[in-house]
Amino acid sequence: MADIVRGVGLDQLLDDLIDALAARLREHDPEITITHDRNGFHYDKPDLGLVEWMPALEAGRQVSVKTVAYHPNNPVQRGLPSVLATTTLHDITSGALLALTESTLLTALRTGAASALATDVLATDGPVEVGVIGAGAQAVTQIHAISRVRPVARVLVTDTDPAVAASLVDRVAFLGIEVVVIPCEQVARMVAEVDVLCTCTSVDPGCGPVFADGDHRPWLHINAVGADFAGKVEVPIELLLRALVCPDVVSQCLLEGECQQLHGHPLGPDLANLVRDAPTYRSRARDLTVFDSTGWSLEDLVAAEVILGHAERLDAGVLVDLNPALADPYDPYGLLRGDGLL
Amino acid sequence: MADIVRGVGLDQLLDDLIDALAARLREHDPEITITHDRNGFHYDKPDLGLVEWMPALEAGRQVSVKTVAYHPNNPVQRGLPSVLATTTLHDITSGALLALTESTLLTALRTGAASALATDVLATDGPVEVGVIGAGAQAVTQIHAISRVRPVARVLVTDTDPAVAASLVDRVAFLGIEVVVIPCEQVARMVAEVDVLCTCTSVDPGCGPVFADGDHRPWLHINAVGADFAGKVEVPIELLLRALVCPDVVSQCLLEGECQQLHGHPLGPDLANLVRDAPTYRSRARDLTVFDSTGWSLEDLVAAEVILGHAERLDAGVLVDLNPALADPYDPYGLLRGDGLL
Repeated sequence: MADIVRGVGLDQLLDDLIDALAARLREHDPEITITHDRNGFHYDKPDLGLVEWMPALEAGRQVSVKTVAYHPNNPVQRGLPSVLATTTLHDITSGALLALTESTLLTALRTGAASALATDVLATDGPVEVGVIGAGAQAVTQIHAISRVRPVARVLVTDTDPAVAASLVDRVAFLGIEVVVIPCEQVARMVAEVDVLCTCTSVDPGCGPVFADGDHRPWLHINAVGADFAGKVEVPIELLLRALVCPDVVSQCLLEGECQQLHGHPLGPDLANLVRDAPTYRSRARDLTVFDSTGWSLEDLVAAEVILGHAERLDAGVLVDLNPALADPYDPYGLLRGDGLL
Repeated sequence: MADIVRGVGLDQLLDDLIDALAARLREHDPEITITHDRNGFHYDKPDLGLVEWMPALEAGRQVSVKTVAYHPNNPVQRGLPSVLATTTLHDITSGALLALTESTLLTALRTGAASALATDVLATDGPVEVGVIGAGAQAVTQIHAISRVRPVARVLVTDTDPAVAASLVDRVAFLGIEVVVIPCEQVARMVAEVDVLCTCTSVDPGCGPVFADGDHRPWLHINAVGADFAGKVEVPIELLLRALVCPDVVSQCLLEGECQQLHGHPLGPDLANLVRDAPTYRSRARDLTVFDSTGWSLEDLVAAEVILGHAERLDAGVLVDLNPALADPYDPYGLLRGDGLL
């Protein structure tokens, strides 16, 4: 992955993802690209966590399955990212496995790309001030992605762990944007002062929202991003009820996104419609808007495709010959013949 | 995979799988080992086929996800097996990917192992005559697996493609068992003469069963194995209604197995109960019995575990360092630092 980013450039890779996702969303036809809602195993032993699969079919062409794990205690207890993921790509003519790609970085990047697209339609023109609640791994790609669609005047960041908030300054230093750390007691002040807010927390289910309803700019746009779980919400219901709320995938957002709080309430356009009808929804840039990002398997298909295209071009990765090339397709033991084993 | 089989020995590997599966089924607790029914994408473009995922969780320990593709035209059109599969294993403490294994051979072997276990409980004592309808890849491992639990006096085989039936003789020659090819017009005669029957066909949905109800030995045991699809059945309903029918997974068999024909009818024990209470069900060996094998994700978990255990011991496979070892788990771009890219 590092070789690919080195070859392509980080800004360019993120722009590629934003552009590829926008193009795919504009032409999205749910009869041709079929996605399943995330499904998986949730557990609290040995620790709170989940492993889920996110499948997408592009008719006539390929299937991608991202397997994504979320273990909020990873950073503190194991020095690992809370989200770890891999994606497999399968040819659907023969069913053969085409590729497997590490997708931890890709997940962060494509989540950023989705926020960039929503922000580009729904946020006020720049330069914007960006607030960030939750300064973990996703914060880096949220800020980076927003900076690709708006000039960012300043970032205000807060986290329940002040050390993590403070370290974000270094982690996004490469962007050359001023980053101000706000004590978490002053989150209300921060929300009041920004044009774009990203919530990307690991708040426990039942313990949200991560800020109280209160003052904000009339045109505030929120990207509600934090990894999703039934019962986990980041944005207060009172605010949601005043806002145009755009889910990435309606069914999934109702199960585990901010939209859990909005059953029976009207929702805004989903991400595909938002991007397709961007000129129409651009009129809402002066209003309070929320992008409910739960993560869509289509985003993972696009991300895997982009990265594997670059991998092929750059000759990056490891070629593993997995699928059995059998002289006789009816002979599962064919791989053992010719060396006297059978 | 060839290196592993070479190191372990094919008979030994199959015995390992049979033993490991038996042990796991005897201690199976659905509260501890949680499996999802197979789910996936089915399509008819560019060709009839499916890609499905089969997940299993072993609480506190690991998750396996087999991705399996079934493309019945593969052998004739592409020289590939109709079933292609890979399995990933995930640690559930951190969510990290532990391993990926090719599972085409494993799927054939574990399907054989499951039939061996059912046959061992429900078939008459040997030597047995074994009939096979559908002489493709699964036929090889069905015959091999049955030969591990019963002396096989003779195999009778038929296939809609006489050349495929004829080639089975060579493919199972390593077993040293007499194999007689029966023209498919005489399938009824074959069914009448055998003690154990394996159906492992690619019959199209809606075109089954693959033999008509008629004469058979009173103690006939059938393993109904062919890759499953809604609407695809291999065994005639009249016979099923007279038999003790044991599904591998009740819910899945009702959706896509022979049990599709038995909604509202009583079913026998599932595979886990059959194996756990083998002494009880052994009394049914003189009766007509059917094992409805749709393939269980638990079998895939066990198979992946057995093969990866051998791989580790034999130092087989390729080590790919996929999961990002980041100095800072909150820094998704950490892999780019230190080389001047950021």
